[in-house]
Amino acid sequence: MKKAVVLLSGGIDSSTTLAVAKAQGYELYALSFDYNQRHRIELESARKIAKALEVKKHLVIRFDLREIGGSALTSETEVSKSEPQSRQSQIPITYVPARNTIFLSFALSWAETLEAGDIFIGANAVDYSGYPDCRPEYLRAFEEMANLATKVSVEGKIKFRINAPLLYMTKAEIIRKGTELGLDYSLTWSCYDPQPDGKPCLQCDSCRFREKGFKEAGVKDPLASQS
Amino acid sequence: MKKAVVLLSGGIDSSTTLAVAKAQGYELYALSFDYNQRHRIELESARKIAKALEVKKHLVIRFDLREIGGSALTSETEVSKSEPQSRQSQIPITYVPARNTIFLSFALSWAETLEAGDIFIGANAVDYSGYPDCRPEYLRAFEEMANLATKVSVEGKIKFRINAPLLYMTKAEIIRKGTELGLDYSLTWSCYDPQPDGKPCLQCDSCRFREKGFKEAGVKDPLASQS
Repeated sequence: MKKAVVLLSGGIDSSTTLAVAKAQGYELYALSFDYNQRHRIELESARKIAKALEVKKHLVIRFDLREIGGSALTSETEVSKSEPQSRQSQIPITYVPARNTIFLSFALSWAETLEAGDIFIGANAVDYSGYPDCRPEYLRAFEEMANLATKVSVEGKIKFRINAPLLYMTKAEIIRKGTELGLDYSLTWSCYDPQPDGKPCLQCDSCRFREKGFKEAGVKDPLASQS
Repeated sequence: MKKAVVLLSGGIDSSTTLAVAKAQGYELYALSFDYNQRHRIELESARKIAKALEVKKHLVIRFDLREIGGSALTSETEVSKSEPQSRQSQIPITYVPARNTIFLSFALSWAETLEAGDIFIGANAVDYSGYPDCRPEYLRAFEEMANLATKVSVEGKIKFRINAPLLYMTKAEIIRKGTELGLDYSLTWSCYDPQPDGKPCLQCDSCRFREKGFKEAGVKDPLASQS
């Protein structure tokens, strides 16, 4: 059975990506990160999703990106709620410096140990909100670097592929895809700014993208109906 | 004053790299990792070297690579002492899957936050013991990826350079260079297998490379004279 390492934050995109990899017949190794993000509550969702999709192993790597800083997601800076930050020309304050590079590097390390040639990431370039490390050219460059970085690739045993199956899908298409695959979106988490009562704020960019996505998909958000 | 992020393990190569960056006039930001390596004692050396070379900041990022495994350095597997593993055709068991990629990714994240264009790594391709992520083609691929990965590079503010000033130097040349620059090698640590009394084993590959390097450089190892 072919193996895949799948980055899993617990949000809509990574959870759908896990469901896509499962549908493609991979043995799943889900990888999450506790990087002291303000919305660490998403890790609970990652655990639930990993369990629901019967992954072979779910690994949570811990480190503290607050020590490095540079983002509203790893500081007490308020995340934007005043105006949508979806313009391609602007990189939002929720950008975390080199986050996907760090995540993919750990995925590569684990993939090499497992001898898994496929790494999956829920990167998206359509409802893309300006993150440089979600673009196809970045993912290609990472893949090229990965194949020069590792023992198994240099020895010719494995050629790594960075799979981003949602890259050219809208949020609505992603939600329709996951729904088709039977994914239970009530288990996912999107909000960047969880409220004291543990509910999503419904005002941050991520909550807005979620709401818009479900609306356009013509699907009821099971999480919204709980709140 | 131009800034540099310098990877610092506390060994000869990274310490000399820090001294080279200092001599080139950079404001220094030293970055070390506590990844549950069996020779965590090297972090003490990193702290001493960082202090001696008056870095602006020394950051130690913690995570646990034992959870990923795949290396004698992050497991209880015995590190090789029977035969030297310096042949280019063999990758030693002390190789840690994608380690430099993980280290450089954190360096990139910090460099972006600091707006530092230069990252220094003590990679070496001569006394090179088979690590794929020490080769020039790997470092070039990482640099290319880095410049597609980050907000500051995509916005054209910074072009990242991965500097590996020791890349084509022998261990003896490295030691001579550091000695010229006034580096105190008694503060460094090389051994992969620290003994219960806190002294180097003098038998592992890293101890042997160190001994050979000092001998060829015609310099007395201040650490050896202490033991």
